[in-house]
Amino acid sequence: MSEWVIGVDFGGTNIKVGLVTRTGRVLVTEVLPARAHATPARFVDGVGGAVDRLLRARAIRRAAVRGAVVGAPGPVDHARGVVHSMVNVPGWREVPLGRLMRRRLGCHSLVENDVNLAALGEWRFGAGRGVDQLACLTLGTGVGGGLIVNGALARGVSGAAGEVGHMVINPDGPRCGCGARGCLEAFIGTAGILRMARRAGFSQRALTPEQLSEAARPHTNQVGVGARRDNRASRQVWQEFGRWLGIGVANVVNVLNPERVVIGGGVANAWPFFAPALRRTVRRLALPPAARAVTIVQAQLGNHAGIVGAAVLVWDK
Amino acid sequence: MSEWVIGVDFGGTNIKVGLVTRTGRVLVTEVLPARAHATPARFVDGVGGAVDRLLRARAIRRAAVRGAVVGAPGPVDHARGVVHSMVNVPGWREVPLGRLMRRRLGCHSLVENDVNLAALGEWRFGAGRGVDQLACLTLGTGVGGGLIVNGALARGVSGAAGEVGHMVINPDGPRCGCGARGCLEAFIGTAGILRMARRAGFSQRALTPEQLSEAARPHTNQVGVGARRDNRASRQVWQEFGRWLGIGVANVVNVLNPERVVIGGGVANAWPFFAPALRRTVRRLALPPAARAVTIVQAQLGNHAGIVGAAVLVWDK
Repeated sequence: MSEWVIGVDFGGTNIKVGLVTRTGRVLVTEVLPARAHATPARFVDGVGGAVDRLLRARAIRRAAVRGAVVGAPGPVDHARGVVHSMVNVPGWREVPLGRLMRRRLGCHSLVENDVNLAALGEWRFGAGRGVDQLACLTLGTGVGGGLIVNGALARGVSGAAGEVGHMVINPDGPRCGCGARGCLEAFIGTAGILRMARRAGFSQRALTPEQLSEAARPHTNQVGVGARRDNRASRQVWQEFGRWLGIGVANVVNVLNPERVVIGGGVANAWPFFAPALRRTVRRLALPPAARAVTIVQAQLGNHAGIVGAAVLVWDK
Repeated sequence: MSEWVIGVDFGGTNIKVGLVTRTGRVLVTEVLPARAHATPARFVDGVGGAVDRLLRARAIRRAAVRGAVVGAPGPVDHARGVVHSMVNVPGWREVPLGRLMRRRLGCHSLVENDVNLAALGEWRFGAGRGVDQLACLTLGTGVGGGLIVNGALARGVSGAAGEVGHMVINPDGPRCGCGARGCLEAFIGTAGILRMARRAGFSQRALTPEQLSEAARPHTNQVGVGARRDNRASRQVWQEFGRWLGIGVANVVNVLNPERVVIGGGVANAWPFFAPALRRTVRRLALPPAARAVTIVQAQLGNHAGIVGAAVLVWDK
């Protein structure tokens, strides 16, 4: 008998609900608008409805669902199934989401940090296959991380491990959204990319502080487009991006001596433009025994990494 | 029947050989000069002689020795018992020290990185007792680290994990011994302390570049002595030290979310002078869920941490 896992990825704009096999194949997904499902009750309702439709469409019985996992953008208490808070979604404070989901879906339900889930997916079925020591970084509006140490997810004592985006790499650097100065994310999150792009002469018009947060993603793409046209200024921006990212990755390599580093997230689509500077910087800054042991590669599972990770989490239980 | 472990700590000036019980009690030690035992053959000879004397003096039979562990200042292949290289000791390249020790001592012999060994000691019998997520930093000429993740030592894929001293915390910072710029160690290793002390008006005389390496330790102490006399300039140096150390510790806290951070090594004797700035900085820079979860304490086992760690390694096998 086939068995399935329900994976739910709670993103900034969309909630993605998918059915995934034990072997990490995502069979079918449905996308819900995040805004319309931003409270815990509406979220559970919306996801429940989507699961009903997905199961019905594929004629899958509920008994064939082995479990469900929600990947949440924020710190969670995995053992208790509680979401401590969500980044950029107010009203989520100590929500017992595992219990609420189990009540609605009628199956074993877990919560996990979204980046940890993506790391589990890449580890078992993507670019991180076959290693016991792995660091996954996701590059987007912010910079996240998920760590596999000694063949297991490193959650830390309160589920907050992996925040590589908030390593300070220059205390005189730009202010970060977290309040500190000079975090990796302040340099290479979308706001940081925009800062670099502006200095290089890009997109001057849209870059008043008020417009920054809204404009971040399109303008980031614009820089990428520039690189594809062999625009020199754009190439410089992505090289600078690669150097800053390289400092962050070198720090992780020196601390954890991983066998592989996987770089994912939307901004990782600019991989060809920043990868050479990234690798050069890591070779220069990581100590030789760690630098020799690591390979740095692009993620393979794209948007589905979190849903695939749900399968890993449930089947490994 | 009592059983014993032989712990060997290969330091820059001394080699310490000790007998330790299963409960982490160091019964007796002997100290050998490192210079006279700097080659693998002389090292094994010297340690073998010391072990003979220690066992004879306590009337301990060889059969009661459960195993031996050498803590080496450099990367090792723990599984194969090979020392890749030693910091500041030439001539150690891929030395099968575990095999050489077993031949001489007649017991199961392991090698481990010295800071990892100290971390194991503090974890089981010192300031890190009772937690599954622990970071130990050792502050001396350099800055080392040993990490316990999910209740096990994190060695990384090639035994090179824990090099927290080589996280870059400011790419425009001073040059580090490793060749990079702005490593944590470049700021707060003894050379960094001397730089801060010099700027504060201390010890101008001895601080030509040639004298720096030799003078490091006494001058470091001098800064400490100044603090004890309530010398304002000295207090400033240690506060600055605490802030830089705090950046490094905050980075480790953001990446690994440990329950406890233990600070050891000779320079940690200045604890009362830098601890407040260290704790303030970590509270400011670590994300709240990780900052709330961690306590930062001084190491408890002093010079014996590595020998105590030998007992942990052997008994946990």
